[in-house]
Amino acid sequence: MPNILFAALTEAWDDYETHLRSALDDEDLQYTLATDLPPAEVDYIVYAPNSTVRDFTPYTRLKAVMNLWAGVEKVVKNPTLAAPLTRMVDDEGLTQGMVEWVTGHTLRHHLGMDAHIVNPERIWDDTPPPLAKDRPVTILGLGALGQACARALTQIGFHVTGWSRSKKDVPGVTCLAGAEGLDAALTTAQILILLLPDTPATTNLINADTLARLPQGAVILNPGRGPLIDDEALLTALDANVSHATLDTFRTEPLPRDHAFWCHRRITVTPHIASTTRPDSAARVIARNIARAERGETLHHLVDRTAGY
Amino acid sequence: MPNILFAALTEAWDDYETHLRSALDDEDLQYTLATDLPPAEVDYIVYAPNSTVRDFTPYTRLKAVMNLWAGVEKVVKNPTLAAPLTRMVDDEGLTQGMVEWVTGHTLRHHLGMDAHIVNPERIWDDTPPPLAKDRPVTILGLGALGQACARALTQIGFHVTGWSRSKKDVPGVTCLAGAEGLDAALTTAQILILLLPDTPATTNLINADTLARLPQGAVILNPGRGPLIDDEALLTALDANVSHATLDTFRTEPLPRDHAFWCHRRITVTPHIASTTRPDSAARVIARNIARAERGETLHHLVDRTAGY
Repeated sequence: MPNILFAALTEAWDDYETHLRSALDDEDLQYTLATDLPPAEVDYIVYAPNSTVRDFTPYTRLKAVMNLWAGVEKVVKNPTLAAPLTRMVDDEGLTQGMVEWVTGHTLRHHLGMDAHIVNPERIWDDTPPPLAKDRPVTILGLGALGQACARALTQIGFHVTGWSRSKKDVPGVTCLAGAEGLDAALTTAQILILLLPDTPATTNLINADTLARLPQGAVILNPGRGPLIDDEALLTALDANVSHATLDTFRTEPLPRDHAFWCHRRITVTPHIASTTRPDSAARVIARNIARAERGETLHHLVDRTAGY
Repeated sequence: MPNILFAALTEAWDDYETHLRSALDDEDLQYTLATDLPPAEVDYIVYAPNSTVRDFTPYTRLKAVMNLWAGVEKVVKNPTLAAPLTRMVDDEGLTQGMVEWVTGHTLRHHLGMDAHIVNPERIWDDTPPPLAKDRPVTILGLGALGQACARALTQIGFHVTGWSRSKKDVPGVTCLAGAEGLDAALTTAQILILLLPDTPATTNLINADTLARLPQGAVILNPGRGPLIDDEALLTALDANVSHATLDTFRTEPLPRDHAFWCHRRITVTPHIASTTRPDSAARVIARNIARAERGETLHHLVDRTAGY
């Protein structure tokens, strides 16, 4: 009978307790689930990186840490963590939310909606936008989220180019990899979507050099991770070839009130809502993984501690 | 060798001539195409309702009138027109454009984008929007455009209810018809999309009575036809249960500068760009139909003159 520690902020416990118990019951598990357990008796930790648990040393019989978030950068380098770590891959909640945000903001910029939403001069310009097939979109990152977004945009009619560290194969998507591939992926990107993980290799990947490769009028969407972008370089590019940036993730969140992004007329700030773990579906993902572990099966969504994601 | 008259504004001729000649050549047709021909020698008229041709009586050997627009309300009641009339059904340009506009603005309202696009108070509210599966959408009208939009929204994850005069069957869509069906279709519509043709039966279908059936906070998208909505009733409903209306079609276009819709904070005006005939694909549709007629086959997209569409 596994003992499961829920280590996250108190509000999260209120959101998750009922869903977790119901999902664990559905897996026919006998278990103890609590926010406080003697460390030496804990088998699994359901973990949010903003919890007070930072030292995993006392958890001597730990079988796994189940991260509640998709991003693991705040826990993956923790030297006290020896047990397997899983990421949240919540197709129903988290991936679907990302697909909706990315599709919505891609279409917003594609259709030029902002000029209609704020139009005090009452300008009636009925030049139609190009069709999606004539609007090349590039997605950097072809993990679970990037692939799902590529599929959704392709279905609508966009020509999607995808770039990833190692070459992927996604039907209907032009897949590129490596440094040369990145160059080609940027050069054609009228809309550039950042869905890379936050690792030492991706920090400031969007910098003065890479921004300069984008075509005139390019739009950037960053629902991925804040550190992917060099903030100062982005501000400079917005005076040059980049026409707009819609950002959902930032180096510091909430974005500080005095940050230059807030009042920039070519930047839209969305408050990290693109991809949010929804308690009901996330609880099912975690319960299924604990049941797998209890049956001696391999865990799903294991983090590669060396790669960092 | 058919004689084809192009009857539309001069600008349209500039847009269309090359595309039409190339599409007619592709059909292996021998033809004469011009903006001025002796009426008694004209076989086909490629027609825009804003052209100067209003009296079809002199066109004594006319085989068909090919309307360049999807809407035929300005020509269908012309008593001098005896020849068959076809509507523009341009899947590639016109239907695809509509799908992009409808999908984009549905996601815009679903995600609550406007609060982020204009956010002078720098409000960071990270409550995520519901997922599309929890946002019921209703489409009034299940013709070519309505069905294509229903399919696209269903693919993204929305639960779509469709309503039409006569019962339709669209996979994955809850199809309703008749007066009772309309009631049910409106009651659940968090986002209501108007894609009905403009006929005596649909004029002012969206009036004080039907608007009152919509749930609190409902959003209306009208990329269909301006007269579907009773403008005054809409303005009243925007002070009650309707939270926003995004309108692409109006009784008078361009929307007059002094119209109340322009400055209303809960109305977005888009300049009739949702569904625009694109010259390249529309020319192919017309050339294919002329080739069918020349081979003695039935015309595609024939207008039912009694129904009015």
